[in-house]
Amino acid sequence: MGSIFGQNFKISVFGESHGPAIGVVIDGLPSGFTVDFDNISEEMIRRKPGSMPYSTKRNEPDNVEILSGIYGNKTTGTPLCAIITNKDQKSGDYDELKNLVRPGHADYSGYVRYKGFNDVRGSGHFSGRLTAPIVFAGALAAQILKSKGIIIGSHIDSIYNVKDLGFDKANITKDRLLELRKMDIPVNDKSCREKYLGIIDDAKKNLDSAGGIVETAIIGIQAGLGSPIFDNVEAKLSSILFSIPAVKGVEFGEGFGIASMLGSQANDSYYFENGKILTKTNNNGGINGGITNGMPIVFRVAVKPTSSIAKEQDTINIKEGINAKVKVKGRHDACIVPRVVPVIEASAAIAVFDLFIGQYGIESFMEESRDNG
Amino acid sequence: MGSIFGQNFKISVFGESHGPAIGVVIDGLPSGFTVDFDNISEEMIRRKPGSMPYSTKRNEPDNVEILSGIYGNKTTGTPLCAIITNKDQKSGDYDELKNLVRPGHADYSGYVRYKGFNDVRGSGHFSGRLTAPIVFAGALAAQILKSKGIIIGSHIDSIYNVKDLGFDKANITKDRLLELRKMDIPVNDKSCREKYLGIIDDAKKNLDSAGGIVETAIIGIQAGLGSPIFDNVEAKLSSILFSIPAVKGVEFGEGFGIASMLGSQANDSYYFENGKILTKTNNNGGINGGITNGMPIVFRVAVKPTSSIAKEQDTINIKEGINAKVKVKGRHDACIVPRVVPVIEASAAIAVFDLFIGQYGIESFMEESRDNG
Amino acid sequence: MGSIFGQNFKISVFGESHGPAIGVVIDGLPSGFTVDFDNISEEMIRRKPGSMPYSTKRNEPDNVEILSGIYGNKTTGTPLCAIITNKDQKSGDYDELKNLVRPGHADYSGYVRYKGFNDVRGSGHFSGRLTAPIVFAGALAAQILKSKGIIIGSHIDSIYNVKDLGFDKANITKDRLLELRKMDIPVNDKSCREKYLGIIDDAKKNLDSAGGIVETAIIGIQAGLGSPIFDNVEAKLSSILFSIPAVKGVEFGEGFGIASMLGSQANDSYYFENGKILTKTNNNGGINGGITNGMPIVFRVAVKPTSSIAKEQDTINIKEGINAKVKVKGRHDACIVPRVVPVIEASAAIAVFDLFIGQYGIESFMEESRDNG
Amino acid sequence: MGSIFGQNFKISVFGESHGPAIGVVIDGLPSGFTVDFDNISEEMIRRKPGSMPYSTKRNEPDNVEILSGIYGNKTTGTPLCAIITNKDQKSGDYDELKNLVRPGHADYSGYVRYKGFNDVRGSGHFSGRLTAPIVFAGALAAQILKSKGIIIGSHIDSIYNVKDLGFDKANITKDRLLELRKMDIPVNDKSCREKYLGIIDDAKKNLDSAGGIVETAIIGIQAGLGSPIFDNVEAKLSSILFSIPAVKGVEFGEGFGIASMLGSQANDSYYFENGKILTKTNNNGGINGGITNGMPIVFRVAVKPTSSIAKEQDTINIKEGINAKVKVKGRHDACIVPRVVPVIEASAAIAVFDLFIGQYGIESFMEESRDNG
Repeated sequence: MGSIFGQNFKISVFGESHGPAIGVVIDGLPSGFTVDFDNISEEMIRRKPGSMPYSTKRNEPDNVEILSGIYGNKTTGTPLCAIITNKDQKSGDYDELKNLVRPGHADYSGYVRYKGFNDVRGSGHFSGRLTAPIVFAGALAAQILKSKGIIIGSHIDSIYNVKDLGFDKANITKDRLLELRKMDIPVNDKSCREKYLGIIDDAKKNLDSAGGIVETAIIGIQAGLGSPIFDNVEAKLSSILFSIPAVKGVEFGEGFGIASMLGSQANDSYYFENGKILTKTNNNGGINGGITNGMPIVFRVAVKPTSSIAKEQDTINIKEGINAKVKVKGRHDACIVPRVVPVIEASAAIAVFDLFIGQYGIESFMEESRDNG
Repeated sequence: MGSIFGQNFKISVFGESHGPAIGVVIDGLPSGFTVDFDNISEEMIRRKPGSMPYSTKRNEPDNVEILSGIYGNKTTGTPLCAIITNKDQKSGDYDELKNLVRPGHADYSGYVRYKGFNDVRGSGHFSGRLTAPIVFAGALAAQILKSKGIIIGSHIDSIYNVKDLGFDKANITKDRLLELRKMDIPVNDKSCREKYLGIIDDAKKNLDSAGGIVETAIIGIQAGLGSPIFDNVEAKLSSILFSIPAVKGVEFGEGFGIASMLGSQANDSYYFENGKILTKTNNNGGINGGITNGMPIVFRVAVKPTSSIAKEQDTINIKEGINAKVKVKGRHDACIVPRVVPVIEASAAIAVFDLFIGQYGIESFMEESRDNG
Repeated sequence: MGSIFGQNFKISVFGESHGPAIGVVIDGLPSGFTVDFDNISEEMIRRKPGSMPYSTKRNEPDNVEILSGIYGNKTTGTPLCAIITNKDQKSGDYDELKNLVRPGHADYSGYVRYKGFNDVRGSGHFSGRLTAPIVFAGALAAQILKSKGIIIGSHIDSIYNVKDLGFDKANITKDRLLELRKMDIPVNDKSCREKYLGIIDDAKKNLDSAGGIVETAIIGIQAGLGSPIFDNVEAKLSSILFSIPAVKGVEFGEGFGIASMLGSQANDSYYFENGKILTKTNNNGGINGGITNGMPIVFRVAVKPTSSIAKEQDTINIKEGINAKVKVKGRHDACIVPRVVPVIEASAAIAVFDLFIGQYGIESFMEESRDNG
Repeated sequence: MGSIFGQNFKISVFGESHGPAIGVVIDGLPSGFTVDFDNISEEMIRRKPGSMPYSTKRNEPDNVEILSGIYGNKTTGTPLCAIITNKDQKSGDYDELKNLVRPGHADYSGYVRYKGFNDVRGSGHFSGRLTAPIVFAGALAAQILKSKGIIIGSHIDSIYNVKDLGFDKANITKDRLLELRKMDIPVNDKSCREKYLGIIDDAKKNLDSAGGIVETAIIGIQAGLGSPIFDNVEAKLSSILFSIPAVKGVEFGEGFGIASMLGSQANDSYYFENGKILTKTNNNGGINGGITNGMPIVFRVAVKPTSSIAKEQDTINIKEGINAKVKVKGRHDACIVPRVVPVIEASAAIAVFDLFIGQYGIESFMEESRDNG
């Protein structure tokens, strides 16, 4: 009824932006996996406000505290609970907005859903801050997947009206993805970095914000993962991707572009190369009939511009029942796209790992885990 | 592990294209609802091959047989099983293709998933024919939703390179949607119908196929439906929409377009009108924070061109382990987009009804049902 | 919301006793498993009315029709739908009882649950007849488990006031279980058969009915199956066992008897024998902390006497709102315990197989399946 | 995959006995419900070691810290996380037992399940301590149910060979249940208290332990709750009850006793009294066909004697692969039955509330909640 995702690998996310703590319970981990906490920290830093050149100055330390599920740096196999204590929050920043419904936010829809009883400070449970525990869980899932040779990486395909070079979908290398993971603004065409920063800077100066598109690839997944009709790879991925705040579109392979192709262009022709089955193009994004075909899984995610802008907007005062104006103050990123990248990758890792466990069993990862210790 | 969808309103779809029968078990219906079977038949005819001007001539009668769950034209409240017996199938058409992996299809991914044991005749469980039971279940869900004032309708937003007028997302009327449901090629700009048919005709002549985009609206849903983080309306809808064969993209409101907007353009400003809370624009597609805001839910679905084309394509012979050529014979639509429209609408009805039951309870629909008898 | 069981191996049961057909959709089967349909028929005959010496004469052929999921006698891996068409039903037998609520039945509770719209003929979806598809699904699961060396068997521990010899819980052999499966009235002490039949005969003559207890053993399951806290073996088994009509109690190992033991008696001491870890006693029924310990899983199920009796009983006329008398006519078994045995075994197979798939993965059974063809 | 229970009202339990903290995330609460934390504390004290006359002296403060989901003493409707920090644990007590498998415990089965990586200190995630968060969640569910007139109460039906007076199942009053809740050793026949304490004292002196049976009643549930076939009330309750450590049997109404009744004795006759539909007896424990019939729900739970006993027992040394002897030291209750009572009641509240939400909707409780503020 809300904040639990997964069928076999389950995460249960909790917390409100200005409450005592946020966190996640992860159920369905293999036992005996040695966790690389430094790697998890790096992922969480990628998501953190303040880690980008342009980013908001809020002091969110995101120091994770593990309450259970880890013993001697290894997973116990029983539920892992990780929490992040909330600190240094200025509730006052939000108080004046209490009755002014912020456009683009869940203020109004959440008010109706929870009859006005939800904690609205800092957007409460709707806050982008809740993606921190998702990044934690996803970074852990990604480590386990990596032990099976599966790598996830992304580039920022566009911000506002500037576009990066897209992936060559049929030929994405591990090195390329690992390189992208190291960039603060991951791009294929390096000249885009400055352009993107320029757009974000302009938006900020204009008390406005900018959106963008992230393109993500997953390589190393063998053919045969996923099940028709409903437990297919696209359904699972889209389901968790649309749970990321600000996401308004998800497409696989050529996505919406495939709709203006002919069949002879869209179909990916198979061929043998050194005994391996490959496709010449990858317009289907590595998925046919909802099942992986061994080619890179490629998808794109549309991220809307930050809803919180300092520019004056029309809105309503819901308490007084009148039309009103609002300027959303506080420290908000003029563009959250770079910070969404690790959230998308973490979410993808969670969905893919859940599918893996359902099909290959938790035990198949535990054989692995015994060796890695 | 595959073909069951839903948390409270559950559908379990079964069958292979050339097996004895396909069908669906629907669990979680309110009791006492008087079913309009004529309406269900109309929906199924919309999906049927042969019902479109250009459509394939396969004789699929889609005569539904109800095995359980209906007594005296009313739902009993216990599981409803509906089956469609397969008739007049020419297996021979497919036999020669057995080892030639058809590009764009699930032949290869399915072969690996099921170790070669799945029924491949007519694409088996991957067949588009399996959308017939989904339309049945969705038409029934839509009837129940309609009794609460909720209407679903669509237009074909584009086929290949021709584009219809999009919805005026903040101002979609019931009359408009009902009118669209009556068109064989539902379009806002009536001149598009002939253009679309022309494109399809051309594709067919060239032994090729064409894709397109469907834009769907749901009106009449009050604010407050859906739950963060994961049981949100976008996640649920996208999950079932990506389960429709050939769908490669899903977007809400302005979708991918919103990524190139500024925040001040993307945010939908609230205002009061006659005591009702509305938004001036509807770029968010009626959903904020994953919860409905009372505005029309609007989403677009990208449908790839039919994978089965008569034109020669490169591929592999999986048995012999060599590269090969294939021409996919048989009776295939050069464009399935019009036939996908009722499948999208049915899928949306199923997802929305499932969310309704979880939030308002099955009993809330049973009060209703007692009155409608 | 009712008739679907399982997390990874899912069965969806449908149908009403006097409707067109009953059946089951089985989702989550491994592909390529060669089904022994004769064995399934035998199991279904064990459950069938008329197959016991004393049993009712209703003509229920239980001829199963497979609609999907089987191709060339092997599982395809996609959903298997099996239906049983209802024939030779005399609705008239039940019509007069329509408003007379039968004590012990779900007539009243079902009336409230479904607001009077459920199909009450022959108890509708509540009918014991609905256990036929469960036996079908369970017999199939049991075959797959048997290919891994897992055997399930039972004896009738008591009927009314006569008691059989209980299992020697720490020493149950495969031969013993297979022998029991061949008996019409499975008992450890063969002299019980006549006594049981005598009790049933007496009950019948007195227009009454008798209950009993079934004790079941599962051998061949390795240690380590099941997960604390909630996905434990006892929870899963009890959950499906309590879904069998007439079951009012479930206990594992010494069950309720363990409550009057001291800890030093109840604890099962471990010892090594030829490198194998065993316990001297098996008071815990092969399960510690919800996880199998490698010893036989042993549980007992209490079955109440058939609710339908010809003897006059006090009740109400729900339509007229007055107290009344009722004699339940029709062809009813004076004791259903022997017919419940295969239902219990089938249910246990379903629950155990579901746990197996979650832990070891569907693929682990598919390796197997490729060999068995 | 383990520690999550529920379909609509979900609890996710985490933690190990000697880890940093244990806790629970509760998802699916109505918003706006004013929580009575004093009442929750009382329930947790009932479960706490040291709260019974005979009880172990371990200092477990069970001070609950709320991390999310509560704002101004009311539920927000978003996930509530409550944690209990572990303090004053003497790991040393357990260290020597590391390789000596304790009979009756999950040491061996857990070792295999988790390949030896689970945290075994104080039984880790298998510890009875993990019932504390279940009591927290259940006490909250019980409060909400109480606002609808539903009351849960229990008496200790037996300890070892001494038996209390059973409930008069068809006539259980609210006052009786509330009175029982106030007793440290809840009994119907007050003379049992001393006898029970005597047995426990004897067991302790003999370095042994004693089991018992708890009988629980739920009153105030209207007819019509639950769904055949699998989502029935008995299946849901048994599923969570068998998740409580030490539970080896669950029965409803007359339970195993009904197996030695005739149908004419077992059937509960209906009658009208002041327009209300009642049954003369309640052998079916308020449930017919898996659905409530409006009579009290009555069930009994068998609790085995504490597995940890100081008496010497035969066992194995799993590391050395030899037979061995073990005495389980540490502070253990000679009888946990009284402390299990609040756990059973809490578990029942969780299962029942989950069924309520599925059937009546979370919104039906929110109307209520707005009034109670």
